[in-house]
Amino acid sequence: MASKTRIAQIGFGYWGPNILRAISSHGDVEIVAVSDKDKQQLAQAGRAFPTAALLDGIDELIARPDVEALIVALPAGLHFDVTKKALEAGMHCFVEKPLALTTADCATLVELAAKKQRVLMVGHTFEYHGAVRKIKTLIDAGEIGQIYSIIAQRMNLGRIRQDVDAMWNLAPHDISIALYWLDNAMPVSIRAQGFSHLPRPKPLADLTYLTMEFASGAVAHVISSWLSPEKIRKVMLVGSKKMVTYDDVNVETMVQIHDKGVDLNAMPTPDYGEYQTLVRSGDLIIPALRLTEPLRVEMHHFVDCIRHGKAPVSDGESGLRVTRILEAASESMARKGVPIELK
Amino acid sequence: MASKTRIAQIGFGYWGPNILRAISSHGDVEIVAVSDKDKQQLAQAGRAFPTAALLDGIDELIARPDVEALIVALPAGLHFDVTKKALEAGMHCFVEKPLALTTADCATLVELAAKKQRVLMVGHTFEYHGAVRKIKTLIDAGEIGQIYSIIAQRMNLGRIRQDVDAMWNLAPHDISIALYWLDNAMPVSIRAQGFSHLPRPKPLADLTYLTMEFASGAVAHVISSWLSPEKIRKVMLVGSKKMVTYDDVNVETMVQIHDKGVDLNAMPTPDYGEYQTLVRSGDLIIPALRLTEPLRVEMHHFVDCIRHGKAPVSDGESGLRVTRILEAASESMARKGVPIELK
Amino acid sequence: MASKTRIAQIGFGYWGPNILRAISSHGDVEIVAVSDKDKQQLAQAGRAFPTAALLDGIDELIARPDVEALIVALPAGLHFDVTKKALEAGMHCFVEKPLALTTADCATLVELAAKKQRVLMVGHTFEYHGAVRKIKTLIDAGEIGQIYSIIAQRMNLGRIRQDVDAMWNLAPHDISIALYWLDNAMPVSIRAQGFSHLPRPKPLADLTYLTMEFASGAVAHVISSWLSPEKIRKVMLVGSKKMVTYDDVNVETMVQIHDKGVDLNAMPTPDYGEYQTLVRSGDLIIPALRLTEPLRVEMHHFVDCIRHGKAPVSDGESGLRVTRILEAASESMARKGVPIELK
Amino acid sequence: MASKTRIAQIGFGYWGPNILRAISSHGDVEIVAVSDKDKQQLAQAGRAFPTAALLDGIDELIARPDVEALIVALPAGLHFDVTKKALEAGMHCFVEKPLALTTADCATLVELAAKKQRVLMVGHTFEYHGAVRKIKTLIDAGEIGQIYSIIAQRMNLGRIRQDVDAMWNLAPHDISIALYWLDNAMPVSIRAQGFSHLPRPKPLADLTYLTMEFASGAVAHVISSWLSPEKIRKVMLVGSKKMVTYDDVNVETMVQIHDKGVDLNAMPTPDYGEYQTLVRSGDLIIPALRLTEPLRVEMHHFVDCIRHGKAPVSDGESGLRVTRILEAASESMARKGVPIELK
Repeated sequence: MASKTRIAQIGFGYWGPNILRAISSHGDVEIVAVSDKDKQQLAQAGRAFPTAALLDGIDELIARPDVEALIVALPAGLHFDVTKKALEAGMHCFVEKPLALTTADCATLVELAAKKQRVLMVGHTFEYHGAVRKIKTLIDAGEIGQIYSIIAQRMNLGRIRQDVDAMWNLAPHDISIALYWLDNAMPVSIRAQGFSHLPRPKPLADLTYLTMEFASGAVAHVISSWLSPEKIRKVMLVGSKKMVTYDDVNVETMVQIHDKGVDLNAMPTPDYGEYQTLVRSGDLIIPALRLTEPLRVEMHHFVDCIRHGKAPVSDGESGLRVTRILEAASESMARKGVPIELK
Repeated sequence: MASKTRIAQIGFGYWGPNILRAISSHGDVEIVAVSDKDKQQLAQAGRAFPTAALLDGIDELIARPDVEALIVALPAGLHFDVTKKALEAGMHCFVEKPLALTTADCATLVELAAKKQRVLMVGHTFEYHGAVRKIKTLIDAGEIGQIYSIIAQRMNLGRIRQDVDAMWNLAPHDISIALYWLDNAMPVSIRAQGFSHLPRPKPLADLTYLTMEFASGAVAHVISSWLSPEKIRKVMLVGSKKMVTYDDVNVETMVQIHDKGVDLNAMPTPDYGEYQTLVRSGDLIIPALRLTEPLRVEMHHFVDCIRHGKAPVSDGESGLRVTRILEAASESMARKGVPIELK
Repeated sequence: MASKTRIAQIGFGYWGPNILRAISSHGDVEIVAVSDKDKQQLAQAGRAFPTAALLDGIDELIARPDVEALIVALPAGLHFDVTKKALEAGMHCFVEKPLALTTADCATLVELAAKKQRVLMVGHTFEYHGAVRKIKTLIDAGEIGQIYSIIAQRMNLGRIRQDVDAMWNLAPHDISIALYWLDNAMPVSIRAQGFSHLPRPKPLADLTYLTMEFASGAVAHVISSWLSPEKIRKVMLVGSKKMVTYDDVNVETMVQIHDKGVDLNAMPTPDYGEYQTLVRSGDLIIPALRLTEPLRVEMHHFVDCIRHGKAPVSDGESGLRVTRILEAASESMARKGVPIELK
Repeated sequence: MASKTRIAQIGFGYWGPNILRAISSHGDVEIVAVSDKDKQQLAQAGRAFPTAALLDGIDELIARPDVEALIVALPAGLHFDVTKKALEAGMHCFVEKPLALTTADCATLVELAAKKQRVLMVGHTFEYHGAVRKIKTLIDAGEIGQIYSIIAQRMNLGRIRQDVDAMWNLAPHDISIALYWLDNAMPVSIRAQGFSHLPRPKPLADLTYLTMEFASGAVAHVISSWLSPEKIRKVMLVGSKKMVTYDDVNVETMVQIHDKGVDLNAMPTPDYGEYQTLVRSGDLIIPALRLTEPLRVEMHHFVDCIRHGKAPVSDGESGLRVTRILEAASESMARKGVPIELK
């Protein structure tokens, strides 16, 4: 494929400019159009991409024959309609997470993309993060052993959303990390709790807890919050052989590999019931990482999948898995934490 | 009361020596007896307290007329029987947490202590911790505003217990801290989850999550783990006015008072559903603390309550509250997280 | 002044693109020319500033009548010649630190700028840093008391320079911070030591220590290194009333105000010669900072000084002071640390 | 040697109780006497060691035939006289650092100990520290390569001394660490600077800088301060192959081994004078340490040297080396940093 891939983007709000900047650094793309209902945002896009057409709606964009691939960076509630139209018009689609708000909608998009033979990719950026990938190589090499638990915390003060709750806003990142590490296994049971503290007209949970149980015995717990004194983006991974922490906030010591574990001994102390456990605590290794910007890796991957006919790492199926989990979690949350079994 | 208070202790294992050392630093006590079934432990006690009688069982201890107050530092399963006998024998009792394994047993002990007019105190050490108390004064002064949430993490590698799970072992500390801050309010709803990963003959949860909902809207989430790469002892408190972190591992910056919050504005942005929220992020204050050893403050408090006829801060009722919560949590855990309403 | 200020830059290497990006964000400037001997760098400049003329030498640049102000971002050894020519041609000049390599050259530039009534500004970026300025307001408000000492560390692995040693490369930042805090007082005595460990054909000190004594009794010690395991950019300020740390690497806790000090008591303990000192250790305050990019503040200040006829905070005199100190320090270093008195 | 070693101590002030506690944990010692001029301190010693004779001066102690070994924990100015008397009386001697205040006095003690065939040991506690020893094994194994530089910082608020300056008080630790790592090589050149900021009747430097140059090219810089906002006890070691930090304040990450360095390339960039250096930055390793209390290791070593006729690691010669360096440093300090050559 000699010519450049012609890209358009719909939505140029909070995160949109970053996506377009990231994809435009790929040598083989041309930004042909940007659409946004906000005039100011559109003007900003015009300054950054002087040759792009500036549009204010979806229909005009879909009608353009020069757009090969569309980036959907709209609020989650609009993902399905816009992506469906774009796929039907024969465009490849990159959709910000979550892919859509229901499992059924995600399935429709996945089927449509297959039928139309178009790339459908969802913005699970962390699957392209050097730290997350480094840990995946450790898991695949057997260094971690059996995965016991994952505890993910994504907490900050703000940005308070009005369209989705903190779980739908923040947890997709951690769910996609967990599934990526667990070879895309789906959990067998989901529990979630959500609490809304801010006195808003339409309350949405600002603090949520999600638990995923896997058939392997692994358990992942995800804490999401918009009301935290500290900015925390941390995942702890406990395996039978080693334990790993990934702290996205501390660049210098982002991944820490702890040579720690518990060796069990069959002979308990008779009277006091204390297990004779041998706690092993060895060296801590902080590997050097090649930290290319994940968003850039992700967007270049989208272009390369289009140009070389490859399936993305975070494909439509991946987006469907995350939405199915969120859907079950919302049901559990509505029923105060009752476990929802996934078939 | 001119003469010294005569103290005995039953159980001189892992934590026992610290308790006895702490209480013996009070000027008005005399250590008259120590009991332990382990000969080596007993010999160690003898070296540290040469004038104390060394015994190997409870009955001999109960029979001694010279013991005014008994410290019960046994495995949790033995607390009830021993404490009951001691109270019946007219001894004041200090019992390590949890007070007993059932609400009914706790209630029996509380009633017995009242009837016998003896001090019954439970070892909720953190209620005597300078950091926890400093935060309580902030709450009482109205500086935190309405309490939205408490997130407590108590995680480490080991010590693996065989008699109780990680929740019964570790969460009493965090439950007692939460109740202390919330003026001894009881939660209205309890949810808990527990997971056992270590391949043991008799599995006990090594990772647990506990959620307490209070009538005020406050929510406390407690994570307890024996299988963590890092030693974490941290409590985050989010209020409507300010937010506080208490990190027991970092002595220099243990309490951090964040002048942070969210001010809501009624006018949402029309199209994109983003709330116009004003995030307020001001100075961070790390108050100087007077960090007297909490165990010492606690044990001296026990002596002073005996000598001056006062009710302890962590009295039998306090122990009963914590056990009632743990009991409900265990029921929720057994039923995979179903909420248990407390009446 | 209605029209835009027409800016050119000579040198578009390591740091040059950042400077030009920073100044171009000012609404009232126009980038008219960029000069660099490296074709690749020049091409990069062309992509970023499509309307700028691309030149490869100084003479062509100086000859252009459309350039009102020149940014000199060349190696330090070229600063003097280029800046002199530009001032003579009537251009305002912004010069990266150090202004020039000798006190005499700096004085020539200062005089020339005065004679030509042109703005001469030197790139002491940290004088425009929110943290440095916050501390200056504390000093001016009397909160720090008498300044006892400043200890500055600027250490990293690389970038190894071949034209100047680590002191001339790194210490200008810390010298300018110290002078800024001390109201542009000049030290009365300078000592310096330098050590070259890398086996290079032309050795230059990769580790240097500089001490400046001021008439007020204040002492500043500056450590500069290219061979450090950790990236350290930290300044400690000790005053008679309070102590402050400024840690540029830790964004969340960048400025820390310690309410600490020593209160002396005239009565020493008779026998053992220990002073009865009362160490005061109060709250730690971490103020919220408005951290606008310092380079942007600096470059906009340059534009504003040109447009409104103001003298820059880091003017030619400021550059002269820093070079005079470095010159004396180099003399001390060559004589193995002998103090050099400044008149 | 079957019987216990009979130990006495003179000086039971600030640090004295820790020393005596540490040595008394050795199974083969008996504490026979403690001497202190302060009645309260002596009473405290009596409570801790009920069988020890309590004395109030040196002569009575020296006269006792039952004392085999004396611990001298007095102010530095009294070390020489007391140790000399004790050695002459045939006692083994452990002397707190510094051994004595002059090189001549140290030499006298070393000779006397040799003549009397008694153990003379100085309290360079850090030579017995697990972290310092771990780094020594790395150096000996060739992992660090050629040692380029050592930068040691020992800073805190207080304890302000009246008998010695901050350098004599704090630097002995860092000097002994540096010499220990450098195989007891002596520096060839010493420079020091000291500054007194506290307004005291008899000023002593509260902030000092010491530089030691070694024939190997290694350079050690030691910063000592009583007036610091932070408690810092940190040593950085830069070698040609690896770099190490030892941070005594952070227990969890005390020793950090950085696989970092600079590989030089002979071809400089022609125009801009930047060396084409290849900075190597690999994994960071934090080794698990066995952190037995150094003071305990040290005091047991003293006992073992006595009982088995061994020379201590920190013997009299070691004490002499440190005092000779401090003596030269004080001369340099008095002459404002002029280098003092050691023959």
